Formats: sequence, C-alpha cells, structure tokens
Amino acid sequence: MKKIGADDGLVMHGWARDLFPIPRSLTGEGVRKTLRYLSELIPGLRIHEIPSGTQVFDWVVPPEWNVREAWIADANGDRLVDFDRHNLHLVGYSIPMDAIMSREELEAHLYSLPELPDAIPYVTSYYERRWGFCLSHRQREQLPAGPFRVFIDSSLSQGSLTYADLLLPGSSQQEILLSTYVCHPSMGNNELSGPVVTAALARWLMTLPRRRYTYRIVFVPETIGSIAYLSLHWRHMRETTVAGYVLTCIGDERSYSYLESRRGDTLADRAALHVLKHTVGKYDHYSFLERGSDERQYCSPGIDLPVGSVMRSKYGTYPEYHTSFDDLSLITSQGLQGGYTVVKTILTLLEANHVFRTTVLCEPQLGRRGLYPTLSTRDSARDVATMMNLLAYADGSHDLIAIAERIGVFALDLVPIAERLHAKGLLEILQ
Amino acid sequence: MKKIGADDGLVMHGWARDLFPIPRSLTGEGVRKTLRYLSELIPGLRIHEIPSGTQVFDWVVPPEWNVREAWIADANGDRLVDFDRHNLHLVGYSIPMDAIMSREELEAHLYSLPELPDAIPYVTSYYERRWGFCLSHRQREQLPAGPFRVFIDSSLSQGSLTYADLLLPGSSQQEILLSTYVCHPSMGNNELSGPVVTAALARWLMTLPRRRYTYRIVFVPETIGSIAYLSLHWRHMRETTVAGYVLTCIGDERSYSYLESRRGDTLADRAALHVLKHTVGKYDHYSFLERGSDERQYCSPGIDLPVGSVMRSKYGTYPEYHTSFDDLSLITSQGLQGGYTVVKTILTLLEANHVFRTTVLCEPQLGRRGLYPTLSTRDSARDVATMMNLLAYADGSHDLIAIAERIGVFALDLVPIAERLHAKGLLEILQ
Amino acid sequence: MKKIGADDGLVMHGWARDLFPIPRSLTGEGVRKTLRYLSELIPGLRIHEIPSGTQVFDWVVPPEWNVREAWIADANGDRLVDFDRHNLHLVGYSIPMDAIMSREELEAHLYSLPELPDAIPYVTSYYERRWGFCLSHRQREQLPAGPFRVFIDSSLSQGSLTYADLLLPGSSQQEILLSTYVCHPSMGNNELSGPVVTAALARWLMTLPRRRYTYRIVFVPETIGSIAYLSLHWRHMRETTVAGYVLTCIGDERSYSYLESRRGDTLADRAALHVLKHTVGKYDHYSFLERGSDERQYCSPGIDLPVGSVMRSKYGTYPEYHTSFDDLSLITSQGLQGGYTVVKTILTLLEANHVFRTTVLCEPQLGRRGLYPTLSTRDSARDVATMMNLLAYADGSHDLIAIAERIGVFALDLVPIAERLHAKGLLEILQ
Repeated sequence: MKKIGADDGLVMHGWARDLFPIPRSLTGEGVRKTLRYLSELIPGLRIHEIPSGTQVFDWVVPPEWNVREAWIADANGDRLVDFDRHNLHLVGYSIPMDAIMSREELEAHLYSLPELPDAIPYVTSYYERRWGFCLSHRQREQLPAGPFRVFIDSSLSQGSLTYADLLLPGSSQQEILLSTYVCHPSMGNNELSGPVVTAALARWLMTLPRRRYTYRIVFVPETIGSIAYLSLHWRHMRETTVAGYVLTCIGDERSYSYLESRRGDTLADRAALHVLKHTVGKYDHYSFLERGSDERQYCSPGIDLPVGSVMRSKYGTYPEYHTSFDDLSLITSQGLQGGYTVVKTILTLLEANHVFRTTVLCEPQLGRRGLYPTLSTRDSARDVATMMNLLAYADGSHDLIAIAERIGVFALDLVPIAERLHAKGLLEILQ
Repeated sequence: MKKIGADDGLVMHGWARDLFPIPRSLTGEGVRKTLRYLSELIPGLRIHEIPSGTQVFDWVVPPEWNVREAWIADANGDRLVDFDRHNLHLVGYSIPMDAIMSREELEAHLYSLPELPDAIPYVTSYYERRWGFCLSHRQREQLPAGPFRVFIDSSLSQGSLTYADLLLPGSSQQEILLSTYVCHPSMGNNELSGPVVTAALARWLMTLPRRRYTYRIVFVPETIGSIAYLSLHWRHMRETTVAGYVLTCIGDERSYSYLESRRGDTLADRAALHVLKHTVGKYDHYSFLERGSDERQYCSPGIDLPVGSVMRSKYGTYPEYHTSFDDLSLITSQGLQGGYTVVKTILTLLEANHVFRTTVLCEPQLGRRGLYPTLSTRDSARDVATMMNLLAYADGSHDLIAIAERIGVFALDLVPIAERLHAKGLLEILQ
Repeated sequence: MKKIGADDGLVMHGWARDLFPIPRSLTGEGVRKTLRYLSELIPGLRIHEIPSGTQVFDWVVPPEWNVREAWIADANGDRLVDFDRHNLHLVGYSIPMDAIMSREELEAHLYSLPELPDAIPYVTSYYERRWGFCLSHRQREQLPAGPFRVFIDSSLSQGSLTYADLLLPGSSQQEILLSTYVCHPSMGNNELSGPVVTAALARWLMTLPRRRYTYRIVFVPETIGSIAYLSLHWRHMRETTVAGYVLTCIGDERSYSYLESRRGDTLADRAALHVLKHTVGKYDHYSFLERGSDERQYCSPGIDLPVGSVMRSKYGTYPEYHTSFDDLSLITSQGLQGGYTVVKTILTLLEANHVFRTTVLCEPQLGRRGLYPTLSTRDSARDVATMMNLLAYADGSHDLIAIAERIGVFALDLVPIAERLHAKGLLEILQ
C-alpha cells in the first residue's frame, strides 16, 4: 500500500477527482461504485447491503433509486438541461416521467438560485414522490417559451441501501469512530472531502505498528445510513466507543471548525479542541445546536455516543454550499492535507492520552537519573518546570489532556517527556 | 366569579382603592376587615386566628392592637394631627395616652422626614411600648408653641393574630406557595399591590381546568405572620413545596425585580429568571443578601424552602417607600397588570415544566408524521431546528427550563412543540 | 518569654542580623548553629540529625559539608576572593582543592553576573562534585593575569542532615503546618525572613491561652530536608493536616504574594486568599505552576497536603534574588512585620473558622435578646443585615470563610458577631 506522506493532499485530491463524476444518492449504483473505489484504497473495507423496506429504528430503508437518463428538450428535440451534463440537474429521487408540457407546467418543477445565478442548486426529495430539475438561474431565464419534453428514465424499486465499514483492531476493545457519508452527487467539500480524508486516515491507521484503540470506520449515506448502521451496532458501540468524529466539509482552505457532541464535554470534544487550540490556533467552535450531519444520530438520547464533527468550512456557512460551485476547485490539496493532519493529530493524541501516576512518593530525584541539570543557578530551576509539572499532576486522576490543560502546554509535547519518565520507572500508566 | 381578563389591572386597582383606607397593623380589626374583603374575592379563603401569647418558634404572638381615636390638639382643642385624617399619623402599636404637654415634650414623640417635607413617614414599634405621631416635616415646622393635648384611644390586649390561606388542590400533592402580607396601613405599592395581585392570581388559578400543582396562597402580617404560619405548616411545606414567591411592591410601573432564594438556584429562581429574561427583558436581579420580606422566614436554615420574591420596584429602592407618598397614584392599573402577568407566566411555566424523554432511539422520522418539510432545500434544514433541539435534549435529565436554557429559546415557546411531539408519541413525560 | 508586640519587626530584624553571617548549606555546622540560635528563641524546638546516606523516599541524605577556609590568591599570596569575606564566594558543596592554575583554568570555575556587575551570585552543586567561586562581575574583570592559587579546605564526609521541629498541641489533633528553610548562606529575603517570621509566629502561638489546632513548625534545609521530614511523618501529617504554609521571602516591602497549593482550593488557599483580599488588598496570586520551594514536596501526588506559600516578593521575581544584594537592607522591620501580620491573621482566621448552625427554626427574635433596634424606621432594617446574613447562611454546611465570601464581608469581622450569637444560644458550633 502506498504510504501516505507529505503529498497526501495531492493524492487525496486525485481520489476526489476520480469520484467526482459518479452520480451518488441515498441508494443506488452510484453509492456502490463509490464504495468499490474506496475499498480498493482501503483493503478490508466491507461493503454491505440492507434491503429496501427494512425497519431501522423509527425509519424504513427507502426504495433504491437509479437513473439512466434525464433531460428537458425543446420543441426541436434539443436537450436544454441534461443529467448527463451535470448530475445536479436532476432533483434527487425524482420519479420517472415522460411528458410534453408548457413552460408554465414546467416552472413548478424547476429549482434555481436567483442570488447565485450561475450555480446549479442541489435539491432532493427522498420521502415524498416528486420530480424536478435544477439549473442555473441564468439558464432558466433563457429557456424558450415551450412546449418542452421532459424525460426521466429513473427507477425507484426494491433494492438496497449500501454502506461500508472497517474495524481496525487495537490492543483494547475500546473504539474510536470515524464516520463520513457517500450520498451526494458531484460536489467537493460537501461531500467528497469527507470520504477521501477518511480513506487517507484509514490507510495511515493501517500502517501504525501498534494501535491502542480499535477503529471503526464507517462510510454511509447521510441520516438513513447512520440510522441503519446504528440499528445494527448501537449496543456494542455504546459500550465501546470512547470518542468519535463525523468527517465532512474538510477540504477547503478557509477555516477549521469543530462541532461539539451533544454533551459538549466528552473525550472527543476535549481532544479535538485541545489539538485545534494548540495547532491551527484559530478555528470556529460550533455548539451541538448547529449540528447538521450524522452526529445527530450518534448523539441522540439513548444512543448518546461521544461524537463531534471535525470540519474545515462547515456546511451551510459558505456560499457555494449545496450548489455546483462546491466543486473540485473549492477543495484543494492543501485544504485536504490540513483537514487530514488535524484529525491525525487528534487520533495521535487519543492514542497517547493515558492516565499516569507517579511511582515515587515526594519529588523524584531527577538528578541521579540524568533528568536534571547538576549545577543550580538562578535560571536552572525553570528548565525542568514542564517535567516537574507533569509529575505534579500525574496523580492518577488526570489524563494527559487534563494535565496539559492544567499546566498550559500542548499535550503532544508532553508525550516524549512522559515516555522518558515511564522508561525511568517514574510514571506508571493506569489506563 | 368574574373572569380575569384584559382589564385585570383596572379591577385590581379598584380592589386596592377599596382596601386603602382600612387601618391595618400586625393585628386587629383592620387586618380582619382586609381579609374579609379578600375572602369575598376568593371563595374558599379561610380566615384563622392565633391567640396573643402563643409561642411560635422563637417568637410570641403580640397583643392585639386596635385604635378608636388618636390626635394631637392645640390649646383651642383644634385637632392638628388626626389618625382619622390619615392612618399613617399614628406610630403603629402606640400605647394609650391622654396628656397635656409642652412642645418640647411632644417633640420626642414626633416623626417626620426633612428630606421629603410633604410626606408622612410610616413608623411602628411592635416590640417596645411607645407612642408617637408621624407628620409631614412641613406641618411639624408649623406646629404652634403649645401646650398640646395628646389623645390616643388605643388598646393593646389579649386578642389574636389574624391570617388567611387557601389550598387549591392539583393533580400532585407538590405545592407552589404564593405569600403576601396585610399589615401596612394606607400604602399602595408596599403593600396593597401584593394582596390584590395575589387575589387576582388566586382567581385565575381557580379558573384553570386542570392544575398540576397544589397551590398554597397565604395572606399574613409580615414577619410574625409568616413565622406563625410556618410554625403550623413547615413540616408539610418542607416536604411538598417545589417553588414559592413572596409577592410585594408589585404594582408600580418603574421596573421589574427578582430577589433570589437563599440558595439562589432553586426551581423558583430558575423559573422566575427565565420568564423575566424572555418577557420583560430588563429587570433588577437582587441576591438574597438584599432580602427584606417573608422570604427571610421561608428560606431560613432548617426551613429552607425554595422561595424567592417577585416585585416591580423593590421596597427601599424608591423614594416614596414607607411614606404617605406610596399611595394609589404610585400603583397603576398597568403596573399591577404587569406584575400579575409576570407571575402568571411564571406559574404557567412551572405547570408546563416537565421532564421529557424521547420514546424512540435515534432521530425520529418527523416526515412521516407530518412534522418535517418534504422537500429538502438549502434552507429547510433550519426550519425544524427547534423541534430537533428539543428532542435532542429530551433525555430524561433536563426539565423544560433546562432544555430551553440550553437551546436558547423561551421555554413557553417549546410547550406547543412538546405537546405536538407528545401527541405523536415521540415524547413521554417522566415527571 | 518576651511578648511579641508592635515592635516585632525590629525584633525580627535583629534576629536576622544575628543569623546573617552564619555560613549555612544543606548540612553542616552552619545549619546547626542557626537552629541552636532559633531554639533559644523558641523553647521546646527539637533539633534532629539524620545520618548521611539515609534513604529518604527517592533520595539519599548527602554527605555533610563543612568549610574551614576557601580563597583564591594571586602570585603574591594576596587573597583576591575569600570565603571569610562573604560566604557566597564559595560554590555550595565545593570539594577540597589546593592548586596553582592559570587564569584560563580558573575561569571555568568562576561565576558572576554581567547584568548585575556588583553582585556576588549564589551558586550550589549539591549532587555533582564540583568546586567554584562566585564573585562580582566587576571584580572578575579586574582579576590579574595569573597564575592563581586556589585553596579550599572543605570536607564532604559522613555526617548528618540537621533540622528542627516543634509541635504545639491544641484542643484538636488536627494540625496546621508552618515550614521554612535554613540552608542558604548570607541572604536576607531568601532566606532569613522565613526563619525569623516563623520563629516570631511560634512565639506568638505559644502565648495563646487556647489553641484549637495543633501546630507543627518545621525548620529544614530546602528540598532534601522536607523530603527527609516527610519520609518520617507523612502518614501522620496526611491524616491530620488541615492547612499549611511554606514561609519564605517574607521580609521585603515591595508586595505580598500567595502561591496556591497543588489543588488550588484547599482550606489553606481559601484562608490565605480571603485574608489577603480583605487586609492588604493588592497582592500577587501565583498558581502552583510557579512553585519553587518545599510546597513541591508537601503537595506531591501521594503526599498531597493542603499547603500553599505566603510570601512578600516571591523568589525569582526580584532582581537581588540569589545574589549578595539580597541582604539585610532588602528586608526591613516593616517588611517582616507585614509578612508576620498576614500569616498571624491567617492563623487567627483558621482558629475561628468554625462551621456554625443556627439553633432556632425560622428567624430568631433578636429584639428580646437586645440584638435588634426596637424602633422600626426607614433605615433600621439595614443595621442588623450582617448579623442576619450570618444567621441565614449558618446552616451547617458553610464554614465561616464560606459565609463571609457569600455575604461579602471579612470573616474576622464576623467573629465577634458569631461569638455574641453563640453566647445568646442562637448559634451552635458543629466543628
């Protein structure tokens, strides 16, 4: 397997380019094709199918939707709007249609954005049977008088919902969850940044010589997919999940964002916020009230997993969101690399986040262990301050993040110190 | 019974006008007459007597005080200061007196306010035998040289302390307390605003088709009255009281005020502060250190009820306080209406303040219950945010106020949503 | 014994003058001489010896160091730098030496401060065998070309570490710790201010007619001394210590400082910060991260005593620190008096810091106990506010400091009120 390196961003952007044209939706061949591509990147990724009509908690798996052709033609048979040209042109889950209609009849089925006149909007209608076309407002204004032929060769039929997951076992049965979604057509930040960053993280995790935690990596269609997934795994996940993140909108360069879990003070929140504060520094901090993706399901009462969401520019906050402008130029190799690095750092911290306890009573004598300057001068007292502070709060009740927050340093900077103290027998690991 | 409506303020002001001339004190016929008037407004209000000399906790019920006549006359027999003209003229609990005296002798028994030269001050001496007259400073300066005849036909004798209460039963034995006092002579904000707003609230509570809580409504003379009342009921009240309010100074238009219970974080405090923040917006928030009425007794250590005080302009903070200027023009129908409405809203919230729990695991499918827009567009995600937020925190550990504070909305705006979700079977009520 | 009075500062400064010339170090005759002097001031102070080589927790008691003579002479035999002239001239724990050497060879063993060219720095090398001389930078620059004779007649041999302690029994076995150190040569603020203020406090505590707490007063060499002391007493101290303070740098006039215990919210912290806030007002508040003295040992995980440090100008924060400029002019009688008074006030507060509970239910009737004005007027309500507030929070769960913080007054101002209420039977003492 290709080792992920300094050029991860370029590699991830390449994967996004490959995946971009595939017409994804909640269900259907587009999802399968996407997951098959990802399974080639991630050996061991298992693809699963749940039949349409299956009850999953309060929901029912919808029919499978596939589209062969979909267009609006003018009186001459010229195709004015064509799903083949851009898969955002068709409202998601549009029913089949073949009809001649007037401009007025057609208008009720058209969606455009006057405020972004060159963008095609993204519209779906999963749970009410509809059909419709999305187009740029400029194109809409230039449509001829009609009549038009509307042709949609789609199917909504008994099939299945497709998702994929992977369990990377660690020393502990305790799990860390990474979840992302694969149900949006050709859009970049929301959504392809999520799957490609998650794939890169999975590949990195597979290269680790030792994993403390077991990693559960999940690719699902949004909402119904995570509900279906939880309906199968929630009891186990509730017992084992120590932290988790929904990864989405994680490929642009504008900002970094974190959206809290429902409780707001879980290990997932503490680790992510500590890393963001000490690495990127400036970031947007969203409360759970501003949630909008699968953390809704993972955090719902009764399930209540410690799951937040790491993003760059959050869905709904950037003008290109849910339009054809959210394309491969909005996500960049640098943007993807930044998102990937932040999550990798968070996972690295979680792996290192032990609860330590000093093994000796009173101050250990650092000097005879080669840990202390031997000549005491005016300034030397400061030199070992961080080591002493770590020892002072390694009392069996603070984890590494809590110690770092208390003593005002970046937790990962404490790791080599803690390892040195552990090697010298001065620290023991309680968990 | 006349239904309380939009003209409650005018009705309440009318009651205050009727009650204004009655010479009230800690005990005596003025209190009885006041309570008889209130019992005509509030069917079921029970009037009780506790004999003078009864031990009530650390206190003893004082002798009953009644006044037939009290005046200061000049050498010609012209009455210069006369209890008949204004019942503030006589110091409360003045002993009988009939004497001729010089100006100098008289001066030691006169009370006036140089800083408010036209106001008659309100002075009492309940626990030390004294006599005295209160008059405007202007009048005092114009008194003739003397001699004067001082005549007080009062009695301090074995009698009783009179109070009234009413229990309005609810579905639960848990109680909400409303307490006000009836021991001040002719003054408006402190005190008649309290009894008339409390009477209006009692009448409103009686019209409710269903009460969750039992309401305990108490009219007592201040301090000794609440002490006596608690001495009879404290064990029961300590077990049943979930929230309570002392209502006083609740009829002017200048401000709204809340004075915290001793603990400061009881349900009484949470409900009142939430309502004030979301309705009147601007209000004065007093700590328990600034207390001055019967919350002193209700919150005392060992009793420790969750009782705060809802006011408009707090006693001691306005210039007319405890003078003849605190009259029927200081309280207004609008002022009374405002105070009444705030307390009514607080009680409405307490009635609605359930602990909810969602009945389904994971996100409920709102769509098939007609609770969700069927067409997903850029903006539709926001439309159901409040409903989803309510569901997200309806985890069996937050009451409605806690959910509202957490999601940043007014709790009463959540009530119809909660009712709708409850009707659809998505929420259950834990308590 | 001389009673400590208004001239304590002068007395303490006199003791410091006596102790100043004694050449102290971790061990040796200088420490013994210092402790013998202190034991004359403090009857009952016991001096103890722990043999070199004794294992004390993670440490070993070092050899005893004594110096008879130490100098650098020029080719003419003139002594250029001489331990007899200032005992800071010799690096602490210097090994014996008698050699002729060049300027270059000598330079590697010289310590001076270019930024403070007239000050002799303080340097030690306890745990690595070294020799060296400290001198002013000005003198260093004027040293001749050489050669030099270096002569150190010191001994590092089996001996002992010397410390002293005193237990002043109180009504309770619970203890308050005062600890200071006696291992620095001729310096004033750091260190003689510590021992002389501690001695004065011990003398004051001995004059008290009644002590609630048992006082443990400890004079040790820093670090190794407190480690050795704890190795003998930690189990008992962990069970009995309710608060403690390391006293150091407590004799100058520049500021007041408090350094928190490791937990930061212990009784030691609460009492010290309350006193500093209400007496000196302006002070520097240091977190445990800025620790540097024996609180390191007292607070270490596993030991975890509630010990902070009261100082005037903290070590390391003033330019004269650890140089010959930290002399008898830096500490003043006023400076020592101020430090002494603050600690005395803290101890007075700890003695008075009871948990009270009111003995009567409801508001006690203050009037019949002569505790309340008998004539109620506009203003009289405020007069007894503090007494009533004290009673209101004397609920058996707040100690005196907690009540004072809650009601916004200085706890020691509550003591006479609490005593009066206790005498009247209205308050009982729970602990």
